[in-house]
Amino acid sequence: MTDTKVYLLDGGTLVIDGFHAFWNRGPAGEVRFPCYSVVIEHKDGRYMFDTGYDFDHVMRVLPFEKPIQDESQKIPGQLAKIGLKPGDINYVINSHYHFDHCGGNKHLHNACTICHAKELEQSANCQPFEHLGYSDLTFSPEIMKAKGVELPPDPVLDVYTPKFETLSGDQEIAKGLWLFETPGHTAGHYSLMVELKNRRPMLFTADACYSQKNMDMMCISSFHLDPTASLNSMKRLKALAEKYDAELFYSHDLESFKTYQTGANYYS
Amino acid sequence: MTDTKVYLLDGGTLVIDGFHAFWNRGPAGEVRFPCYSVVIEHKDGRYMFDTGYDFDHVMRVLPFEKPIQDESQKIPGQLAKIGLKPGDINYVINSHYHFDHCGGNKHLHNACTICHAKELEQSANCQPFEHLGYSDLTFSPEIMKAKGVELPPDPVLDVYTPKFETLSGDQEIAKGLWLFETPGHTAGHYSLMVELKNRRPMLFTADACYSQKNMDMMCISSFHLDPTASLNSMKRLKALAEKYDAELFYSHDLESFKTYQTGANYYS
Repeated sequence: MTDTKVYLLDGGTLVIDGFHAFWNRGPAGEVRFPCYSVVIEHKDGRYMFDTGYDFDHVMRVLPFEKPIQDESQKIPGQLAKIGLKPGDINYVINSHYHFDHCGGNKHLHNACTICHAKELEQSANCQPFEHLGYSDLTFSPEIMKAKGVELPPDPVLDVYTPKFETLSGDQEIAKGLWLFETPGHTAGHYSLMVELKNRRPMLFTADACYSQKNMDMMCISSFHLDPTASLNSMKRLKALAEKYDAELFYSHDLESFKTYQTGANYYS
Repeated sequence: MTDTKVYLLDGGTLVIDGFHAFWNRGPAGEVRFPCYSVVIEHKDGRYMFDTGYDFDHVMRVLPFEKPIQDESQKIPGQLAKIGLKPGDINYVINSHYHFDHCGGNKHLHNACTICHAKELEQSANCQPFEHLGYSDLTFSPEIMKAKGVELPPDPVLDVYTPKFETLSGDQEIAKGLWLFETPGHTAGHYSLMVELKNRRPMLFTADACYSQKNMDMMCISSFHLDPTASLNSMKRLKALAEKYDAELFYSHDLESFKTYQTGANYYS
């Protein structure tokens, strides 16, 4: 049996306003933040948690988020750094279906895609104020169809994520890989905890908490479906970190991200 | 029997950011908006709907909202313009208990105070992100006590609103005076419709819709407890206006406010 390894894939950066990062607090002004994916080499297979954003999509639909992402920061380039090809990933877990967390799904044509049942449902029938968040669902012909968008017959369809598996409740999806329900930011949001042999568990908050500063201020982001649930999820993450002596890894925290190991360096 | 008359009391202005006025839309930058109260002379008594903000409170707790309010814009000054004293008001209805809608309650020492049952409950046990909104509850020793704040024995207590009446559901509280449930911005928000003899009904949205622009964009404000409910309430207001052929009067819309009749001019 191989010990579990965790790699972080640097997927470039985006910009939002300070009033988006810190709901009703700000201060105003551009906040540039990282987007990254997590690859877990596990004895049961290769998992990827979130897949970042698709550069072309952002330039077309949300250019005001000023994406910076070079070729090496796209999913194939990042996987190459750790000696893998997109077809090597067996499972893609999406914390949620906002465009900056599922933009690379379409590269992962062999993977089974896992998300919370409520997330699949909501992304196809979202509130108007969620439209931009859920703007890149092209990896799923099923969701696009549920939204009433007919995709043209296209050879590119062959690389769309072929299979979905939905979950509810907290789940240990493989030994030491825990999905914890953290809704509020979206309807069916999951955070991921990975238990490792040689260090404290890693608890990936995803967008249930953007940054250390959000956690310190107990301030959620301005992108949310249910702020009360969102605040409760942030409290939950804090409690989980204490319970399991886990280290929190935030989704969009440039300062923290600089201290994370990326590329071929891994956690085990 | 006297025909019902409606007076609008100009309570000055405040400033918020464009990202607060238009949730996640903006644009950023200062938006100055009016706060006003509505006095209804009805055969059953004198009603006031909302009471604006208290200048001293805002300067102490939220000076960044840059209040502009002269003496004539405080409740006693505004009532004097229509020949009334604070003691002449029989009923105060608060759409909700945010500081800019109940700041003048304490002047109205003879009035019975009416609000939604859920609003009284939530204002005493609000979410952390609602604290600033609910920061001026000093008119109610009961709520302050429920929040765990002991008010000092003080002669000023004599002017605190002495009596609460809570309601649930839509209510015709007097002939032609309708309260419609419009939750989301807060837990127990009411909008008010007044039917008049000589013109279309007036539908006061209160903070279920700040402005015509919010309505046109179907964009709620960034201050909310439940954005989904908030959007549904905005849709409800639109439907009510159509059903009753009512004119919408927005709570915080400088352009619209300039076209409203204020002071001794009234609607009937």
